[in-house]
Amino acid sequence: MRVKLMLAANFVCASAAFAQSSTGQAPITSSSVTLFGIVDMAVTYGTGSDASKTQLSTGAYQPSRFGFRGNEALGGGLGVNFWLEAGFNADDGSGVAGNTNNTPGGATSGDFISFSRRATVSLIDIWGEVRLGRDFTAIYRNREQIDPFGTNGVGASQPHVGTLGGPTATRASNMVGYFLPPGLGGFFGEVQYFMGENIQYSPAPITNPNLKDGNGYAARIGWGIGGFAVALSSSETKFARSDTTGNINSWNVGTSYDFGFLKLSGGYYRDKVDSFVPLTGTGYLVGGTIPVFGVDQVRVSYSEYGTDAFGDPRTRKFAIGYVYAFSKRTLAYATYAHLDNRGGASAALAGSLTAPDRSSNGYDFGLRHSF
Amino acid sequence: MRVKLMLAANFVCASAAFAQSSTGQAPITSSSVTLFGIVDMAVTYGTGSDASKTQLSTGAYQPSRFGFRGNEALGGGLGVNFWLEAGFNADDGSGVAGNTNNTPGGATSGDFISFSRRATVSLIDIWGEVRLGRDFTAIYRNREQIDPFGTNGVGASQPHVGTLGGPTATRASNMVGYFLPPGLGGFFGEVQYFMGENIQYSPAPITNPNLKDGNGYAARIGWGIGGFAVALSSSETKFARSDTTGNINSWNVGTSYDFGFLKLSGGYYRDKVDSFVPLTGTGYLVGGTIPVFGVDQVRVSYSEYGTDAFGDPRTRKFAIGYVYAFSKRTLAYATYAHLDNRGGASAALAGSLTAPDRSSNGYDFGLRHSF
Amino acid sequence: MRVKLMLAANFVCASAAFAQSSTGQAPITSSSVTLFGIVDMAVTYGTGSDASKTQLSTGAYQPSRFGFRGNEALGGGLGVNFWLEAGFNADDGSGVAGNTNNTPGGATSGDFISFSRRATVSLIDIWGEVRLGRDFTAIYRNREQIDPFGTNGVGASQPHVGTLGGPTATRASNMVGYFLPPGLGGFFGEVQYFMGENIQYSPAPITNPNLKDGNGYAARIGWGIGGFAVALSSSETKFARSDTTGNINSWNVGTSYDFGFLKLSGGYYRDKVDSFVPLTGTGYLVGGTIPVFGVDQVRVSYSEYGTDAFGDPRTRKFAIGYVYAFSKRTLAYATYAHLDNRGGASAALAGSLTAPDRSSNGYDFGLRHSF
Repeated sequence: MRVKLMLAANFVCASAAFAQSSTGQAPITSSSVTLFGIVDMAVTYGTGSDASKTQLSTGAYQPSRFGFRGNEALGGGLGVNFWLEAGFNADDGSGVAGNTNNTPGGATSGDFISFSRRATVSLIDIWGEVRLGRDFTAIYRNREQIDPFGTNGVGASQPHVGTLGGPTATRASNMVGYFLPPGLGGFFGEVQYFMGENIQYSPAPITNPNLKDGNGYAARIGWGIGGFAVALSSSETKFARSDTTGNINSWNVGTSYDFGFLKLSGGYYRDKVDSFVPLTGTGYLVGGTIPVFGVDQVRVSYSEYGTDAFGDPRTRKFAIGYVYAFSKRTLAYATYAHLDNRGGASAALAGSLTAPDRSSNGYDFGLRHSF
Repeated sequence: MRVKLMLAANFVCASAAFAQSSTGQAPITSSSVTLFGIVDMAVTYGTGSDASKTQLSTGAYQPSRFGFRGNEALGGGLGVNFWLEAGFNADDGSGVAGNTNNTPGGATSGDFISFSRRATVSLIDIWGEVRLGRDFTAIYRNREQIDPFGTNGVGASQPHVGTLGGPTATRASNMVGYFLPPGLGGFFGEVQYFMGENIQYSPAPITNPNLKDGNGYAARIGWGIGGFAVALSSSETKFARSDTTGNINSWNVGTSYDFGFLKLSGGYYRDKVDSFVPLTGTGYLVGGTIPVFGVDQVRVSYSEYGTDAFGDPRTRKFAIGYVYAFSKRTLAYATYAHLDNRGGASAALAGSLTAPDRSSNGYDFGLRHSF
Repeated sequence: MRVKLMLAANFVCASAAFAQSSTGQAPITSSSVTLFGIVDMAVTYGTGSDASKTQLSTGAYQPSRFGFRGNEALGGGLGVNFWLEAGFNADDGSGVAGNTNNTPGGATSGDFISFSRRATVSLIDIWGEVRLGRDFTAIYRNREQIDPFGTNGVGASQPHVGTLGGPTATRASNMVGYFLPPGLGGFFGEVQYFMGENIQYSPAPITNPNLKDGNGYAARIGWGIGGFAVALSSSETKFARSDTTGNINSWNVGTSYDFGFLKLSGGYYRDKVDSFVPLTGTGYLVGGTIPVFGVDQVRVSYSEYGTDAFGDPRTRKFAIGYVYAFSKRTLAYATYAHLDNRGGASAALAGSLTAPDRSSNGYDFGLRHSF
């Protein structure tokens, strides 16, 4: 028996789940609730000088996820928006780890499903958007949007894979953020404050050095017009200083220009950990995407990241891939990536193992479906 | 590509998720499936004599949740209803703990999402509702419905926050319940039996004292007509007797009267733990809600709870708040609460710390959106 | 406020959630997304010679679950299909364990919700279906489809309950499978390869004996026409040899014939664990289902499973039950099962305990609702 037709909600399948995540949202003029998701799996093969690995991987094009989001127009140009997005590993059905307090100790186990990717509620009007909850940090957007491989799969850029940015390099919990509205002559921007939610001893003397662990901010400002865009972002997350950790400061700049037959992008990235002996990581990316037959795409990137640790270990990656579009919702993709290590670095691709200063190769052959 | 329009189900956004939870449901005459949820976050600040805390909190007006529920008319006045409701922490995307067997050892970790709030299936006809699964216990309803703050946020009543009622004070798993139908001249009631699901040794001699741990019952009966309602509830959960635990017996009574310009409510609460040295907790609440501009609300309550432990520790709370309604689905709220401790009690608000017999203050500034 | 009516997706309530799980899917000609689920609870009682147990159980007719699935027609007879299905315990709201790498160590905790039942994406055309992800293994289908009780509840067949088939006896993660298309004159079949995703040391000498743990294959081929069907399946999962484990090889054969007034089924099952002292388990099932009043059903089965361990322990089960259909979506059921142990076996039903060579009884009284 099919149940009766009687509808009171707007359920939409969303093939552009990222659309609202990177800039402030336009004022809300209608109400809806959307169930959305991505299932992305690939046969992935990695080789290194010591060991290779074959696996069915998840999210080599876009991380697998499902979620609920919606909005409500409140009148007078004001609206409210919510977004709940859970990551999962499509190859085995398990979940993806989150973090409750922006510190290494707050990481949750990776086996179970939670809204590890995003949990937010926003108030939005013509002055911009105030967003509360767990979300990407501003510092991440210049890694994601500049990278032709979107920081996913074997082709993910080295400034993303190797970043010293710590627990808040990609997302933060307990965050209050503000986004500029669209329509400012191409200017866009956001600023975020996030909390580690530690107890503050007062008026008692401060005896706990970790009082501010996990507190921080991130900000990004940019300008885009026509096919051109440039954006600068920075962040700081506080941690008590030790041999291995301390406040983490990051900044980066990204730019792109769309020639029509080619979209070129580039970025520079810098992260500093203020441990007793400070550690700095720097890197860059140059990439391009070439549309083919209108809907397919060739993706190429060259990226490098390294630190000033003993030996100045650095890793360079070259990646190239093709995306075949069955439809907007369904894509097949193939990616090849090659890593070179120097200065004692031993990064390896796709679960393989490689000796210091040796190289590694990785291959993804996958299928992504969004709903 | 948007998928085709072809509908066979009734998806409804539910702004009144609590509607069916407190009394028996009317006979089901149509079929539907509903996706529903609440995203509720607040900036919360707590101060005590020793330490303060600032956080982005979740559920200070209503606990954040999502779920699926639906029903099917089976003909002849009979219907079936299911309800799956998962709690989550909107500030970081993690889940809310449940309990698999109504004992302290059955508590699940709070990081992951499960249907920790409710998982039930019911058969309903004109004779009432039989409900199976995990749900609120009857003893909880007189804490929730009498409290102007609904047991949530810094304003939550002391008889709720301080209760000695143990693992089944709010919910129980493995429960078989019966609800009276509506339309009995204002009488309503429910009775529930829940199981700890321990092995019963038979005919072998009983060597395990914990055989009945987590077994129990809860019941509630009340009468409401016009703006007046009164209800009495009681429960017992069995635990093997020790220095710190034993059978837990609770009873409470609540009443409310709606004058139109003011809804007054009051309750008395008593919990007893039958440990080797028995421990009894008692408390009361007096509260009121005042509608403003038809849709907004002022909320006020004064409550107290204490035990007969050495020193007779007791805590009193005064709470006042305002709820601003953007719409039925979207509310902003502000709450202030003040705690006073006596007899060695050291309760504190919103994650702060306070010394025995000192006071504590808490503040919530939040946004609740339901779908 | 009810949100506006504005629809762009096909949400369907699915009462036949199993329909696509057992054979290849027909070519996809429309696009849809479906939210589906089952809530199944029973009062279950088990008795043995040593101890009995009463509980509210979950999934005694069909395991409780919820999920999202959908498909998209890609043109030219090609389509894509996704299926995300999470198991949960309806009696307490907690989740059901999965497994990330097809080994005992990859089992996830049973408290939380993940897509432990199925997470797949498929490409489908007239040549068949390629399916990636976590799913039932082919070897399981002849246990499920031959058993009148579908491997669930106290009536579940002994070849299922007692199987030596290890972590992949029912499902496997990291799987690449191929299903024959329908319409091959009644022939159906599938072949699956699944991966433990261990690191392969190369060219270094192989020092880790567990390199292939969790790798394996499963296959099934059958023929069905009119009311008759027969199918043969086999599988192998690799594990390093030890005292207690080693490669696991299974094969089974099942057949059924539908006389209209009675559907008879039978199966033979064999599992071998290649440990230092190999262990072999064998069993069979004979069962029948009898339609009553067109929609109700009597279910009967007799099954046995045992191993060649010392004493040749074997367990026999007789089960009988009745299913009352309120509707296609809502069923009530009652099942009685009786176990006899021999050769030192001490299997017991529904959480009870029984001494070696003693018997056990189990009873389910439940309600299943699907959406």
